[in-house]
Amino acid sequence: MGDLIDQLRAGLPDDAILTDPDVTTSYANDMASFCPSGAPAVVVLPRTTEQVQHVMRTATVLRVPVVPQGARTGLSGAANASEGCIVLSLTKMDRILEINPVDRVAVVEPGVVNAVLSRAVAEQGLYYPPDPSSWEQCTIGGNIGTGSGGLCCVKYGVTAEYVLGLEVVLADGRLLKTGRRTAKGVAGYDMTRLFVGSEGSLGIVVEATLALKPVPPLQLALAAEFPSVAAACDAVCAIMAGGHVPSLLELMDSTTIRAVNDLANMGLPDSTEALLLAAFDTHDPGADLAALGELCTAAGATQVVPAEDAAESEMLLQARRMSFPALERISSATMIDDVCVPRSALGAMLDGVAGIAEKFGLTIGVCAHAGDGNTHPVVCFDAADPDESRRARESFDEIMALGLELGGTITGEHGVGVLKKEWLARELGPVGVEMQRGIKEVFDPLGILNPGKLF
Amino acid sequence: MGDLIDQLRAGLPDDAILTDPDVTTSYANDMASFCPSGAPAVVVLPRTTEQVQHVMRTATVLRVPVVPQGARTGLSGAANASEGCIVLSLTKMDRILEINPVDRVAVVEPGVVNAVLSRAVAEQGLYYPPDPSSWEQCTIGGNIGTGSGGLCCVKYGVTAEYVLGLEVVLADGRLLKTGRRTAKGVAGYDMTRLFVGSEGSLGIVVEATLALKPVPPLQLALAAEFPSVAAACDAVCAIMAGGHVPSLLELMDSTTIRAVNDLANMGLPDSTEALLLAAFDTHDPGADLAALGELCTAAGATQVVPAEDAAESEMLLQARRMSFPALERISSATMIDDVCVPRSALGAMLDGVAGIAEKFGLTIGVCAHAGDGNTHPVVCFDAADPDESRRARESFDEIMALGLELGGTITGEHGVGVLKKEWLARELGPVGVEMQRGIKEVFDPLGILNPGKLF
Repeated sequence: MGDLIDQLRAGLPDDAILTDPDVTTSYANDMASFCPSGAPAVVVLPRTTEQVQHVMRTATVLRVPVVPQGARTGLSGAANASEGCIVLSLTKMDRILEINPVDRVAVVEPGVVNAVLSRAVAEQGLYYPPDPSSWEQCTIGGNIGTGSGGLCCVKYGVTAEYVLGLEVVLADGRLLKTGRRTAKGVAGYDMTRLFVGSEGSLGIVVEATLALKPVPPLQLALAAEFPSVAAACDAVCAIMAGGHVPSLLELMDSTTIRAVNDLANMGLPDSTEALLLAAFDTHDPGADLAALGELCTAAGATQVVPAEDAAESEMLLQARRMSFPALERISSATMIDDVCVPRSALGAMLDGVAGIAEKFGLTIGVCAHAGDGNTHPVVCFDAADPDESRRARESFDEIMALGLELGGTITGEHGVGVLKKEWLARELGPVGVEMQRGIKEVFDPLGILNPGKLF
Repeated sequence: MGDLIDQLRAGLPDDAILTDPDVTTSYANDMASFCPSGAPAVVVLPRTTEQVQHVMRTATVLRVPVVPQGARTGLSGAANASEGCIVLSLTKMDRILEINPVDRVAVVEPGVVNAVLSRAVAEQGLYYPPDPSSWEQCTIGGNIGTGSGGLCCVKYGVTAEYVLGLEVVLADGRLLKTGRRTAKGVAGYDMTRLFVGSEGSLGIVVEATLALKPVPPLQLALAAEFPSVAAACDAVCAIMAGGHVPSLLELMDSTTIRAVNDLANMGLPDSTEALLLAAFDTHDPGADLAALGELCTAAGATQVVPAEDAAESEMLLQARRMSFPALERISSATMIDDVCVPRSALGAMLDGVAGIAEKFGLTIGVCAHAGDGNTHPVVCFDAADPDESRRARESFDEIMALGLELGGTITGEHGVGVLKKEWLARELGPVGVEMQRGIKEVFDPLGILNPGKLF
């Protein structure tokens, strides 16, 4: 331990090394429930690639596990410290190195906050789409580690689709450059994509070249109220089969609607069993919303409310943004599932979740990125009640089982971390796990990079 | 050899095994120049996943190399047979298993021809964008192995972005399922993307789940004539920096223009030093073309010709489609480079290629997917002249060196194969090569999958 700190000091400034247990303990967890963590031996906050390389070389020599961290807004325990580890926080490497409107790329350090980058590129007429709910806190490095999504993915895709190239410090401290800054490139295996979603288990991202898009027109939204979740899901299928490309297509179930009403008195009718929010950022969003509204009505919507302007759109989307805070008020604790199913199975998924809530006697509110089939069932429970906590965990697992049955995945955008390790093995199967472990060993033969996560 | 054929027969029907040397020799090469090949011991044409598994198990037991092939339209020698190998042609596995408009996916076998799939999904209002020039011949399996591009990539991206999930037969005959059919998913490492562009070196793709888009409106095109390549490249930069999203943005240099004129008497003025072709498939392509035309004029275009309708658009694009056949008439042989640079470096790249042509005393015509910075310098030479052949190969290499200098990649969409092996190592660097070799060993510990390619 003394040896570890001494060796770290040889390549890091004093203020980049935190050892006070009161401080280091505050780095032990991300935002997931039910995930064990240990006490870090030390927290390091490097500012340069060379400093990260020094940390990894030290960790390799001393065989100390390293847990990379961004803003710790993750929801799977992937950033949780293990006992005696080095927590490697990338938050001080937060420079935007370049924004290039001709090449439509940004080059950034991993600690840049998502919203900071989004605003910086917007000033140059550019758009970095991935928009996880935590975008005001979460970092690009964390987004890359997790493979984050957001509300815009139904049209613009996920983080992975915007990562062109990376600089990565390997477990032994060597620097690996992957990918490119060109629009296309097929030189060798796609190592860049391998790191996206690898949850810090293969290397430490110290620089990323990101693809940007031109800023689209302002989006215009619509809310549609349905007498049943099934009818709302039918509308989603009709919208997607009809060739529409909304920039947002979200579903809230009645539990969520009532929670939001209780929190903010949004005036949503209590008779509404499901709310669909849609938006277009096209040349003529009003016309696109009208066509979409007709499909909602045909599917049984009792009311369709298109916004007249951007301000009204924002008001409609407020209901969605308040969903998680509203559901979190219902009980002392929540767990957020992240099952993604083929969108044709969305109705079956939500029906199944309602059954699981009933079976376990729990409140489970569902928000969904409906256009992606990505559901977020929020299991509400009393953490002080051991039996209710057990039921919460069991229902959480049963929701993942249902997702796999329906041809889906256990995680659309939140990652595996500690929370879904067993389930990853079920999803991948033994051959898949064997190959993934093989890849892990290529990059991290000593097993010091975020051990105990994923597998 | 007799042993090999006998063991293959145990799991394959007789008509799936070709041993006549006159026949098997015809499977020895893809369409690349300067790439050595050997005589296959046997060509197998399985129709089922089980048959592919039998082939791989046999190859593993007998330690025989396996070279997977699609339509052999590749341009890097990646599908060339090695001496005594099993050529594994996937062309008989050519069924479209599913097209689903709600989930916007197609599930296909690897031997499905790109154009066949494109037309089949179009009948259901769907669009499979990747459109390599060989789309009427090339197979989806080949597209996945190569990571193919095409003309539409400037708006719609490359093959990799449309591959959601795969079934892969591993070197030892086991079946690996990767990815998903959902819109999103981050469960474990992205194995799907690892196989895209892996050139048959990691496993045999036997089924692919592909993402589809809704059919866009018909595109409308424009041609702009420039007095210099530099002016045309300036226009490309202005178009992209201006936030435009054309569905096609192609550049032809004067050598290409004159070759096309000679072939088809297109009436392109001989004074034109560069031609830019652009198209939009937006709601109001006429307005978008007008704005783009103004940028061309501002950059120095001497004439801007927008098409009035789809038929006129097709006529304009004919010039581009005829480029390679026209350049191939100039000499007895051609080599097509595939260097992709950041689009801000396109002018420097084309200027450098002109210098290389002069230095080596060769004709090098350039077509470029200008919006992507993806250039295709076509080196024309007399294959019967050893000195000219040597100069052709040297100029080809010098073009790749220039691409790397300018921050680009040696291959945007044609792959590495045999042709660019040395250059892959230069692009990746020693750490990159070491990691990629490590991955190769995880999947193919005996080294029987397409040996001698990539590395």
